[in-house]
Amino acid sequence: MLRLNGKNCFVCAKNELSGAKKIAKKVSNDLKLVFGSEPEFKELDIHNISFEEAAKKTEETLIIFGTAQTSSFFEKYLGQENLEKREVYSFTVEENKIIIAGSDKRGAIYGLFHLSELLGVSPLVNWCNIMPPKKKSLELEEGTYISPEPSVRFRGFFINDEWPAFGNWATHNYGGVNAKMYENVFELLLRLKGNYLWPAMWASRFSDDGPGLENAELADELGVVMGASHHEPCCRAGEEYRYLRGPDSIYGDAWNFRSNEAGITKFWEDGLKRNGKFENVITVGMRGEADTAIMQNATLADNINLLRDVLKTQNRLIRENVNEDVMKVPRMLALYKEVEPYFYGDKHTKGLMGDPELEGVTLMLCDDNHGNLRTVPTEKMRAHKGGYGMYYHFDYHGWPYSYEWLNTNYLPKAKEQMCAAYDFGIRDLWIVNVGDIMTNEFPLSYFLNLAYDYPKYSALEYTTAQYTAEWVEQQFADFSDKQKATINNIMNTYTRLANMRRTECITSDTFAPVAFNESEKILELADEVLKECEKLKLELSKKDYPGFFAQVYFPACGTMNVLKMQLLAGRNKWCASHNMIAANAYADQVEACLAFDKKLVEECDKVDGGRWYAMGWSEHFGFVHWNEEENRYPVLAKVIEPRKGRLCAWVEGIDFVTTGGDWTRRPLSCDLFKNPDVKTARVFIGACNKKMLAYELALEGGEDWLTYAVKKDKTLLIDTITLKVDREKLLKAGDKKAVLKITANGGHGCRARIDVNIDAALPNLNYDKGTFIQTGNYISMEAAHFAAKDSGSWKNETVAFEELADYGKTLSAVKAFPVIADFPKGKNAPYVEYKFVAAGEGIKQFDFYLNPSNPAYKDNKLAFIAEVNGDKIQKDLVDAKNFAVGDNQWAWGNDITNNIRIASVYADCREGLNILRVYPVTPNIVLQKIVVHNANEPFPYSYLGAPESFRLS
Amino acid sequence: MLRLNGKNCFVCAKNELSGAKKIAKKVSNDLKLVFGSEPEFKELDIHNISFEEAAKKTEETLIIFGTAQTSSFFEKYLGQENLEKREVYSFTVEENKIIIAGSDKRGAIYGLFHLSELLGVSPLVNWCNIMPPKKKSLELEEGTYISPEPSVRFRGFFINDEWPAFGNWATHNYGGVNAKMYENVFELLLRLKGNYLWPAMWASRFSDDGPGLENAELADELGVVMGASHHEPCCRAGEEYRYLRGPDSIYGDAWNFRSNEAGITKFWEDGLKRNGKFENVITVGMRGEADTAIMQNATLADNINLLRDVLKTQNRLIRENVNEDVMKVPRMLALYKEVEPYFYGDKHTKGLMGDPELEGVTLMLCDDNHGNLRTVPTEKMRAHKGGYGMYYHFDYHGWPYSYEWLNTNYLPKAKEQMCAAYDFGIRDLWIVNVGDIMTNEFPLSYFLNLAYDYPKYSALEYTTAQYTAEWVEQQFADFSDKQKATINNIMNTYTRLANMRRTECITSDTFAPVAFNESEKILELADEVLKECEKLKLELSKKDYPGFFAQVYFPACGTMNVLKMQLLAGRNKWCASHNMIAANAYADQVEACLAFDKKLVEECDKVDGGRWYAMGWSEHFGFVHWNEEENRYPVLAKVIEPRKGRLCAWVEGIDFVTTGGDWTRRPLSCDLFKNPDVKTARVFIGACNKKMLAYELALEGGEDWLTYAVKKDKTLLIDTITLKVDREKLLKAGDKKAVLKITANGGHGCRARIDVNIDAALPNLNYDKGTFIQTGNYISMEAAHFAAKDSGSWKNETVAFEELADYGKTLSAVKAFPVIADFPKGKNAPYVEYKFVAAGEGIKQFDFYLNPSNPAYKDNKLAFIAEVNGDKIQKDLVDAKNFAVGDNQWAWGNDITNNIRIASVYADCREGLNILRVYPVTPNIVLQKIVVHNANEPFPYSYLGAPESFRLS
Repeated sequence: MLRLNGKNCFVCAKNELSGAKKIAKKVSNDLKLVFGSEPEFKELDIHNISFEEAAKKTEETLIIFGTAQTSSFFEKYLGQENLEKREVYSFTVEENKIIIAGSDKRGAIYGLFHLSELLGVSPLVNWCNIMPPKKKSLELEEGTYISPEPSVRFRGFFINDEWPAFGNWATHNYGGVNAKMYENVFELLLRLKGNYLWPAMWASRFSDDGPGLENAELADELGVVMGASHHEPCCRAGEEYRYLRGPDSIYGDAWNFRSNEAGITKFWEDGLKRNGKFENVITVGMRGEADTAIMQNATLADNINLLRDVLKTQNRLIRENVNEDVMKVPRMLALYKEVEPYFYGDKHTKGLMGDPELEGVTLMLCDDNHGNLRTVPTEKMRAHKGGYGMYYHFDYHGWPYSYEWLNTNYLPKAKEQMCAAYDFGIRDLWIVNVGDIMTNEFPLSYFLNLAYDYPKYSALEYTTAQYTAEWVEQQFADFSDKQKATINNIMNTYTRLANMRRTECITSDTFAPVAFNESEKILELADEVLKECEKLKLELSKKDYPGFFAQVYFPACGTMNVLKMQLLAGRNKWCASHNMIAANAYADQVEACLAFDKKLVEECDKVDGGRWYAMGWSEHFGFVHWNEEENRYPVLAKVIEPRKGRLCAWVEGIDFVTTGGDWTRRPLSCDLFKNPDVKTARVFIGACNKKMLAYELALEGGEDWLTYAVKKDKTLLIDTITLKVDREKLLKAGDKKAVLKITANGGHGCRARIDVNIDAALPNLNYDKGTFIQTGNYISMEAAHFAAKDSGSWKNETVAFEELADYGKTLSAVKAFPVIADFPKGKNAPYVEYKFVAAGEGIKQFDFYLNPSNPAYKDNKLAFIAEVNGDKIQKDLVDAKNFAVGDNQWAWGNDITNNIRIASVYADCREGLNILRVYPVTPNIVLQKIVVHNANEPFPYSYLGAPESFRLS
Repeated sequence: MLRLNGKNCFVCAKNELSGAKKIAKKVSNDLKLVFGSEPEFKELDIHNISFEEAAKKTEETLIIFGTAQTSSFFEKYLGQENLEKREVYSFTVEENKIIIAGSDKRGAIYGLFHLSELLGVSPLVNWCNIMPPKKKSLELEEGTYISPEPSVRFRGFFINDEWPAFGNWATHNYGGVNAKMYENVFELLLRLKGNYLWPAMWASRFSDDGPGLENAELADELGVVMGASHHEPCCRAGEEYRYLRGPDSIYGDAWNFRSNEAGITKFWEDGLKRNGKFENVITVGMRGEADTAIMQNATLADNINLLRDVLKTQNRLIRENVNEDVMKVPRMLALYKEVEPYFYGDKHTKGLMGDPELEGVTLMLCDDNHGNLRTVPTEKMRAHKGGYGMYYHFDYHGWPYSYEWLNTNYLPKAKEQMCAAYDFGIRDLWIVNVGDIMTNEFPLSYFLNLAYDYPKYSALEYTTAQYTAEWVEQQFADFSDKQKATINNIMNTYTRLANMRRTECITSDTFAPVAFNESEKILELADEVLKECEKLKLELSKKDYPGFFAQVYFPACGTMNVLKMQLLAGRNKWCASHNMIAANAYADQVEACLAFDKKLVEECDKVDGGRWYAMGWSEHFGFVHWNEEENRYPVLAKVIEPRKGRLCAWVEGIDFVTTGGDWTRRPLSCDLFKNPDVKTARVFIGACNKKMLAYELALEGGEDWLTYAVKKDKTLLIDTITLKVDREKLLKAGDKKAVLKITANGGHGCRARIDVNIDAALPNLNYDKGTFIQTGNYISMEAAHFAAKDSGSWKNETVAFEELADYGKTLSAVKAFPVIADFPKGKNAPYVEYKFVAAGEGIKQFDFYLNPSNPAYKDNKLAFIAEVNGDKIQKDLVDAKNFAVGDNQWAWGNDITNNIRIASVYADCREGLNILRVYPVTPNIVLQKIVVHNANEPFPYSYLGAPESFRLS
């Protein structure tokens, strides 16, 4: 047992890699933060013996670190079998020393940061001032831990869409997108066990802005492998050509490999000469300027030939300027937008697939910019030498909507998608667009953890909820247990709500203001997050607040406040449409949200000494085009009171309002008590003016089983009449119907007479456990609440549905594993089975709520089979001929924006018990819930679909 | 020549009818108002000789009046041929006397009022305090004028829908709906030359409320023939049975002729006994209580038999209690709602048509409650003994919307419809529902004038505009010519606008806020009316104001202010939807309109000493159901300024807005100058906040032919850039295109760069006079602007299209005369021909704007033929199988609400000249305009349709 305390000394060889030394200094500072005293730092001329001797001469704990390449001292700690592995370290605790041995530079660095982790130091310690708990000492078990080789070779992120936030932040705090700034970014990346970065490039030239080459030199020193985005070949930033081109430029004045081959070749050559000495994943291929198609009016063959020539040239340049063995140079070609068809070719023209120039080149695939994988490699393609990469998005600037402000990413979705990527063989390069970085650290941590240690983080039983709890512990270790539980709830709730629909594209019409109490339920959750955040804000110390602000308060309050604002705007609109004066109070509340939104951004500019200045500057609500331009600020509907007395009445969850006037009297119906789980039901009375605030209530029938209580809201002037049923008494009651009579008199013939007809008769409940019972005008079933399931088989593997915890908007989701299995025509497919009792026979519409996954392969197929009472109906989720991902592809775009794909199947049902089974046909079927309702009647709109029906348990 | 001055004496026989004497007293008072001194009044015991002698003995002018039945003195003045005529009078001027001889009581009364008319006394003199001009003398030519027999036998109005306005008014001013009140109504009716009245009956019993029988007695004395509404048989008000019924009542306790035949028969008998001595048109037949169907669950045959039995009983009771010769008793059966099928029967069951019980009974038909005739008699039916009546509406309480507040009736429509009624043989009884009467006096005057002297008032060349001018002269004779011209304009304009859509059912969405400048044009007209009214209000004396208020100011300002309010609410909404801060200023303006609306109603309560107290109390805007309950007060959209600088730009008439942001830049197009009539075109720039108020303008191209000027609106923060073209210089210009460049910079990357692409190249104009030329994306043609027309023939009569002046929403209308002609399959039909030059070939949609007439006959057919370049297409305007008038008949209800029926025909057109001809197939085709546009492109919404295109002249 080693008791680590304030007396420590870092020891390394004088000739140790400077990057490892720099990182050791950072870890040294971590020790200071924890123990209060700064460790010593010794560099020794000699090697292994000296380390041993140094240990004998001191009372301090020695922290000996180094790489096996620099000093053979470390070999025995690592073990021979690990010497050739990538980025592995051993962490050995002995008596009074800790020996950190890296198989390479990043191995040593990860090993050093392993110590920080053990000390309880967050990877975000310096990035966002998350201070570790102070300690007097820390006990470490003696022994050696050897890290596994990382699952994915290149793992990193992309700083993108960086104006106005990141760009202004960097300029304000560091004077530019320079090495001073990047040191922080590199450290963040390495602490998160990433190794790969795409730098900011909207208005930056990474290899010029350091100043000079400093950015690239620092990256290389610290072990950060640099890449560039998909359209920036040969270590050249996209902006560089625009900067260097001209009539007199040696690079010519045309981004055109046909008309300016010499100039472009020279441009690439000089890029490779400049940066080839550093660790890179070199982008190959070519696109048009500013991320456009390369040749817009040419044949497929012309384009393929052009790209082949480009690759040939680039490979030659790499051989000449970087490494004669081009196979040793990590290279990447993005199969993105128009490059994808060039890769696949068509019937008449062979594509680039299998081309020798692509051997050893990592083929980078992409999600649809909104977190859903696009085409993945088929089994045959998976053998490609060079493997595959995935460009994923936690931030996007483009169609159908941008999301650039605060984190709106949801771990269960990222997990499902990235695990699928891995399972489909995409394991060589994972890069994620994190926009301005700030507030995306949470999903980024998960992304890099998963890439680093796939077996651990991909496990279904290791839920993202557990991950979140551990992440919260890591950041806020010395908060009270209650505070940590609160933060845990905040993180889970705000990301779950943001996953329903991202902040930018929620409108006042998104959630149903009344139907199914949808708006009310969401508002309650959002309000809870906001309240908990404010409560913690008051509790936390000056030291603890900055990290909490950056990681919790700002993203949670920012997103939930916008959600709340739009929900209130929806209520404002609804009340106004019925001339209820509550609209005016809601308008005030919307304005309060807007003021709070402004306050949040202002706080972000000032908090923690201006650390995050400008980071909140992106527009973030009311998008009507894909970008912030023309975004709509909430419109506040102000209502003028009707001249004559008037009130409105409605039953909870049902968007039907009556005023009960003499000429338009229409009764209300309340069937909610037919659901055995329901004990209370509410009737609302909203005032249209103050002339008819008084009304009389009388209950006809209801004997002793029904009572009611009235609660008045003096701000909204909406009264809530809560009807309460005594289930025991109801059971014995003869008449299970009652009428609540509302009468009011506003003078001048303004009478209101409203009957609320209550029917509390239970349906037949004599069915098996797990059966859903229709009690209203629909049956809604969470996918995970299947009554039974059975496995299938695929290539001698067993395939079965599993629940994906917390996935989905309302509960979870189910998906068949292994995920790459497919079942043409449903043969050998596994299934999930649902039982439901319909209140009446007839054709019913089955609305299946699925993740808006894209087809896995080029065949563009995505299908499942719904079997209703033995009749199988295959449902193709997309039109294989026309479905496409991309700008102005509305079929895709609408589902993406809604973050759901609703597929409807029609089938004849009988009154009473019906059986529904769901079988996958293709991969990527992720089912969240099923709503069944009469096909020939209008069904009320809601964003989330009707809530779950009564289920026998 | 007789010089009438202040010295006058009325002379009549002592035994003259008391009603005539009472009216003479009123005319006597008229003379006092004009000359300042009250005439004497002498009743003589003896007859003709005495009159002559009396004349010799005095210096006063004698006004000798009487009826031929009372005194033979009058026979020679009337002439033998007129003695048996209805309601005829002679008006003879001799030396120092005027002899007024009536063929009957009403003849004498109309003759007396003829003197008032000659004196310049308005029929509204006492009803609404419209004072005649003072005179010293009036010269009358000597000679005799003999009035024609009135065209329609029974002519009158129905006081209906009388709560809250009329009912409260009568209660407040007269203590009830009693004889004191009715004396005013009877006088109004008679001065307007009506003779027939349906009294208020919502909560009144005419023959009980006098008090007692006073109402009925007074009516009879003054010569007012009383009727009752369609469901009040045998001189019994609808409310009477409810009042008298009961378990111990002699009338029983069931409004059921089967179960309570004795009680009901007794009830009717006592009604006839009570009122049979007075002049009545006795309602026969029976409906259910409170205007519902009589037997709801019975076969057609059962119902017909029931009604036949009812009629048999009623005729028997009339014989026994009124007149043995039932044919001498005016009786009326309404063919309304369910009674109509009982009349026609069906294939299996003979209807009541031709039943002997109906002989001599006037069959009352009805409009659709919204001013469009329903089924009219076929040629065969026109021979029915007893003839036909028409129940028309200037006020309605029912589906799809009620209109009960102020006058929204339009004379051209009433004229077209009532002339059609007359031409279809409906000539025995005309009754019009005038609701509370007040403000409907204007259309009522026209209605009763037309009924009294059909040949004069029905003439096409005697336009309603001329009528209006004469009416204005009659009411406001001593106003200045300018004031009268202004009032004339007000009356024409407000009724024309109210005819577009009645006040009650205009919403903020009715008129297009931007497309075709629709809202702007309407708002200008409404504002003009409002301003002119206010100006006159300030000018008028205390004496002149009351009449002006009641007839002009209140209805014109009331309706136009609501129209304005909704137009502003539409702009408020539109600006808000684009986040323009002008929305807030518009919201203020909407509130100002609402305040003014309230002020108007308050003034109505107080003006003229409270004469109109309560008359403005009906709800009158934002109806969402057919009645006022749940009507919507305007919702005011309040906009919050976007955080970043932003402006909006658009071209006049085109609802396409751009902000010119970097990522969403979309140019604007201005093709308005392609229309040779257009000299200016406007581009608008609206501020979304104050950060980007400054912008730069630059004109590229346009040489010397295009200039622009900027006008700023500091309240709305909307700038108007008026582009002006110099047509002469343009002709000589080489390049007829230009670009107006708008640039602005709001800092933080908030740039706006907007190109307005102006194309001023003229189309080919080398076509015949009268040809329409497409210069935008449509061709719009006013129906009256046909290039040619040709007549057709029907039963040896020539049939031809004629223009109906001022009919229609945008100009006028055309209709074939005689109106009863039909042309199955278009054979021998007349036509109107339109020539238009299309800018491109292809399928075009022809939108025909027609009056929402109903089919003339039971065949339910309404059709015309559109012939495009020789290809004839018959267009059925309604679905003969399903079309019906009535509650919840949406096909009808929507057109009624819009007061237009738009029928679309699709035809292939060539680029260049196309010929369209329109032929009627059935009667009731009233065409207002035609809009032609590409069938396969969306065409912008507007309420009135695109404005007229350029036409060669």
